[in-house]
Amino acid sequence: MRQKIDPKDWWALPAGPKNSICDIAGVSAGHSTIDQTEIQTGVTAILPHQGNLFADPVPAGAVVLNGFGKSAGLIQLMELGEIETPILLTNTFGVAACTEALIRQAIAGNPAIGRTTSTVNALVLECNDGRVNDIQALAVTPATAQAAIAAAGTGPLAQGTVGAGRGMKTFGLNGGIGTASRRVGDHMLGALVLSNFGQRSELRVMGERVPLSGPETRDQGSIIILYATDAPVDLRQLTRIARRAAAGLGRLGSHLGHGSGDIAIAFSTARPSKTEAGLLQSERLDDDALDPFFLAAVESVEEAVLNAIWHAEPLPGRDGQAGMTLPQILQG
Amino acid sequence: MRQKIDPKDWWALPAGPKNSICDIAGVSAGHSTIDQTEIQTGVTAILPHQGNLFADPVPAGAVVLNGFGKSAGLIQLMELGEIETPILLTNTFGVAACTEALIRQAIAGNPAIGRTTSTVNALVLECNDGRVNDIQALAVTPATAQAAIAAAGTGPLAQGTVGAGRGMKTFGLNGGIGTASRRVGDHMLGALVLSNFGQRSELRVMGERVPLSGPETRDQGSIIILYATDAPVDLRQLTRIARRAAAGLGRLGSHLGHGSGDIAIAFSTARPSKTEAGLLQSERLDDDALDPFFLAAVESVEEAVLNAIWHAEPLPGRDGQAGMTLPQILQG
Amino acid sequence: MRQKIDPKDWWALPAGPKNSICDIAGVSAGHSTIDQTEIQTGVTAILPHQGNLFADPVPAGAVVLNGFGKSAGLIQLMELGEIETPILLTNTFGVAACTEALIRQAIAGNPAIGRTTSTVNALVLECNDGRVNDIQALAVTPATAQAAIAAAGTGPLAQGTVGAGRGMKTFGLNGGIGTASRRVGDHMLGALVLSNFGQRSELRVMGERVPLSGPETRDQGSIIILYATDAPVDLRQLTRIARRAAAGLGRLGSHLGHGSGDIAIAFSTARPSKTEAGLLQSERLDDDALDPFFLAAVESVEEAVLNAIWHAEPLPGRDGQAGMTLPQILQG
Amino acid sequence: MRQKIDPKDWWALPAGPKNSICDIAGVSAGHSTIDQTEIQTGVTAILPHQGNLFADPVPAGAVVLNGFGKSAGLIQLMELGEIETPILLTNTFGVAACTEALIRQAIAGNPAIGRTTSTVNALVLECNDGRVNDIQALAVTPATAQAAIAAAGTGPLAQGTVGAGRGMKTFGLNGGIGTASRRVGDHMLGALVLSNFGQRSELRVMGERVPLSGPETRDQGSIIILYATDAPVDLRQLTRIARRAAAGLGRLGSHLGHGSGDIAIAFSTARPSKTEAGLLQSERLDDDALDPFFLAAVESVEEAVLNAIWHAEPLPGRDGQAGMTLPQILQG
Repeated sequence: MRQKIDPKDWWALPAGPKNSICDIAGVSAGHSTIDQTEIQTGVTAILPHQGNLFADPVPAGAVVLNGFGKSAGLIQLMELGEIETPILLTNTFGVAACTEALIRQAIAGNPAIGRTTSTVNALVLECNDGRVNDIQALAVTPATAQAAIAAAGTGPLAQGTVGAGRGMKTFGLNGGIGTASRRVGDHMLGALVLSNFGQRSELRVMGERVPLSGPETRDQGSIIILYATDAPVDLRQLTRIARRAAAGLGRLGSHLGHGSGDIAIAFSTARPSKTEAGLLQSERLDDDALDPFFLAAVESVEEAVLNAIWHAEPLPGRDGQAGMTLPQILQG
Repeated sequence: MRQKIDPKDWWALPAGPKNSICDIAGVSAGHSTIDQTEIQTGVTAILPHQGNLFADPVPAGAVVLNGFGKSAGLIQLMELGEIETPILLTNTFGVAACTEALIRQAIAGNPAIGRTTSTVNALVLECNDGRVNDIQALAVTPATAQAAIAAAGTGPLAQGTVGAGRGMKTFGLNGGIGTASRRVGDHMLGALVLSNFGQRSELRVMGERVPLSGPETRDQGSIIILYATDAPVDLRQLTRIARRAAAGLGRLGSHLGHGSGDIAIAFSTARPSKTEAGLLQSERLDDDALDPFFLAAVESVEEAVLNAIWHAEPLPGRDGQAGMTLPQILQG
Repeated sequence: MRQKIDPKDWWALPAGPKNSICDIAGVSAGHSTIDQTEIQTGVTAILPHQGNLFADPVPAGAVVLNGFGKSAGLIQLMELGEIETPILLTNTFGVAACTEALIRQAIAGNPAIGRTTSTVNALVLECNDGRVNDIQALAVTPATAQAAIAAAGTGPLAQGTVGAGRGMKTFGLNGGIGTASRRVGDHMLGALVLSNFGQRSELRVMGERVPLSGPETRDQGSIIILYATDAPVDLRQLTRIARRAAAGLGRLGSHLGHGSGDIAIAFSTARPSKTEAGLLQSERLDDDALDPFFLAAVESVEEAVLNAIWHAEPLPGRDGQAGMTLPQILQG
Repeated sequence: MRQKIDPKDWWALPAGPKNSICDIAGVSAGHSTIDQTEIQTGVTAILPHQGNLFADPVPAGAVVLNGFGKSAGLIQLMELGEIETPILLTNTFGVAACTEALIRQAIAGNPAIGRTTSTVNALVLECNDGRVNDIQALAVTPATAQAAIAAAGTGPLAQGTVGAGRGMKTFGLNGGIGTASRRVGDHMLGALVLSNFGQRSELRVMGERVPLSGPETRDQGSIIILYATDAPVDLRQLTRIARRAAAGLGRLGSHLGHGSGDIAIAFSTARPSKTEAGLLQSERLDDDALDPFFLAAVESVEEAVLNAIWHAEPLPGRDGQAGMTLPQILQG
């Protein structure tokens, strides 16, 4: 291995004060973790703002980098360019329970849903944590989802083997939830990942290949990437931002494995206002101003994944194999 | 109104013996209907074949004609070009329950799912039946889904206000489930719709505008279109077939309304075989041979929708307004 | 054939004063026709406004209904959501000459192009007029394109076998250029088509099948559809409008044939303004207000195609077969 | 800068014998370079096989990573999944001339084109070389394109500032054409790039940031990536391979800049055979076998770009600024 790189020599853009998706004003996140012998799973909730999201949705875009995934809500998000519920992350077989929780919550706050208004588009994304968690137990319930939403806050966010990230593996290492942010002029862009991907031998930490012992893994299992920004950008621009996640994954050593459901979503907290004539009025950046946001998208997803594995506990896998953490390896 | 048109003067291609998606050998379908005062909903199941779909998936393609919809399973279907579960149709808030049913059924037949193999991609599509059904009751359960799958057969299929079509409205008329088929040379192509779309004043029956009394409706509520064929076609060709549904909807008077989740899926029962070297060997039609299948796709979706409203019972809406059926109107 | 339908009973929305894409304020169009024995082809130009389009582009969206086509400029249009040159229509082998003309015109008006600014995205769409025109002669030159642009006006637009439509065939009938418009509240939406598609036996005129004598044709040859509106709609909404063209083609009897390059583009003349801070400020309709525009898109493309074949001269095909026109047939 | 990395520690897969796209049997490539004071441009041709491509097309897929580009032929490639002409690379304003050359060549070999058969889909991709070349001169002619095709061979391929790469800049360094290959079991996958992208300060050479002096550049200007393989894969799988290019660009330090037209195409030389019944019979890899090809796609594009800048001559820019080459910098 080459000598250690100083992070200052790797990242081009400054992080926000929390280096977290919660650096974007109004965005909150929370976890609900299930830790019961073979059941190691959970839910993570991200709320674009504290109000009624169904009544006041946020502009958003989504990109399917590799579609081996079972998320809920992407089709409508892509058509309308909006997010109208909290975003829930969970294991693959927890999507239905999380969907039900979001529907019930939306109805509670908007009694006309499905009656005089349209129905609600629940947004739930997932990775398969079956290497650590007994996923066949379908242990996630609507209550787990509600607990994650209730836990959402804007303070420091736990990372690693928590919430939906509890049973996730990244390049064969434990750790699923990570976050990071970058400052772009007066604006902020943050990423939060549910990371469960990577071929063990291919990991690169700030450009350096890190030899990991233990059995080789395949680049399968998925990664979900959420971007938030306070910059005024529309759904087309948000889709373009989301698409840059692939470059960040490339830096880490991913080849977007066949069995990896790699999906990126970006939303903005800058929402249009309604004119007296009922039109939606909005401002957006000129596309010529997007490049630093693209770079921020690359850097923040790269660092968010590193943070996910850095903060993990060494959970054993269902194959009995002890988990490893990055700090252990780098010290070893 | 002009004089009545003879169907023989409208359709160019001959129907199959059952004029049903079940004309495709091996395809079965069944309903589970909930009929309890304000709860008027259900599930319809379509099985591409009788075997283990997870172990032996069918080639498939999907097209989002208008993405105001909350289906499950489309992202992976588009990436891998395969269907690996029964296809379930239901109301918008029944998707989670149907997903759970499909996951449990797949695990029961394939115990390695999510452990040593990948997870399973449940395919569930929906329309909002809230104009007739109390959709907020979330009345569909995994048991409803199982009952629909258990009821699947290859014989004559009930149409209209049954199964998932129970509470659906088409151009303001009752009726949700319809099917039709067309013979193309030695092959067959069939369509099954869950139809819940249409602006009342725009209905065209075989090219003729039909004045419907009662309050105007908007073209919202969605239509799901399933195509099946026994022709050897690959996912790209199936996607092209599915895309032709838009022309059939146009003939009926649809403008693909903003609030209508219009989604088409096509699958083939002709599956690749595995060579000794582990390759997948398949045959496909030359693209030059596709045009009659495209025409069959247009005609079969058009007739399937007409069949859905033709076979309906006159269910009242939740607004107290009595339902209407097409036979009543054409006789009136 | 059934008794004749009164157009008032078929169309739901009122046409604009010219029933033309030129009903949208600022939009102009013009033709350059080549009529020389075996060379029967040309160019049609549509200008979204009279200013410098490279400096002041219009918001636009595009949809590929069937991608058997060789247009120029669609990839960038889809990424950036803008049109920055006149739109040129021509025969398939005239695209290169038209592209060159647009590049030279853009450079003449914007000397920094490709030097200190980006290059220019020429937008050229095409159909194959080889059934009438000797397409291998590559008879369209940059001068033909310049002549079409120079001829652009806002007055009555010649239709049928003129400009790019000179050698086009629609359902086996002569005629390629047609236009129509619809009024939607205070706004206007217009369509212009370069029509060269349709299986002869499938033609429907306002819902009625019209038996055409002569040899059957296949639904190949392509149709290009341009929509213009003065309504404030963004690229996502324009893309949704463009997608409705498929329903209009369905009404006419199209099945979007395999060999038919069916492409729709929509643009708005309502452009964002620049704020002092360099942001782009814009207003857009609420999506709930889009349905009448979708219906206008269906109706205007349907009528534009009928207008293309209604106004055609009876040009002979290269097979020696005399051309037919719709008025001849309906009178015969 | 950290100590130098040994290439053996960076690449996981072995290169082919020529480390070139010409390692795929049957694939040939050639250049035509224009070197005349301010005119520094050219054409590069890649031929998937030596036969009549219109009569015997190759399966292919394409991905638009960032659509700021003016290529010809992508729409039909995506619909039909085939390449039916040589692939030409050139500068942005040379696309029309190259298209004309391909049309004329196809007609010469297939006299029925556009008459009794369909027209031909010319495939031409481009980057803007205006920082070095006087692009407004439109110096590329059909003859330049023909010369590149005529020069195509299967031997060692010149790289760097040759052919279409003559005036291209990569991370501010000279060099546009590069190639590399990777062996995957019994198969081979190769990449050829026309590279003209990159923000100077972001370059990473095998994971290491390389401080480049001189003025900062933006990540604009585009990169075109061609993949060839002899593995039996269909268009869906080829599209998936092409999509992995983004991860390779990420490794190099790209953020897929706003103004960079980043497009990847993959083709296979393994073509279907025609059965007696007129069906197309083919074999394809199981998707589970794709991961090493995905990794090969990442590695080969990364190395191809490094090769492009490694082999470049130090051409001055149109701003008078002397060009730099990577060897100079690494030695300096």
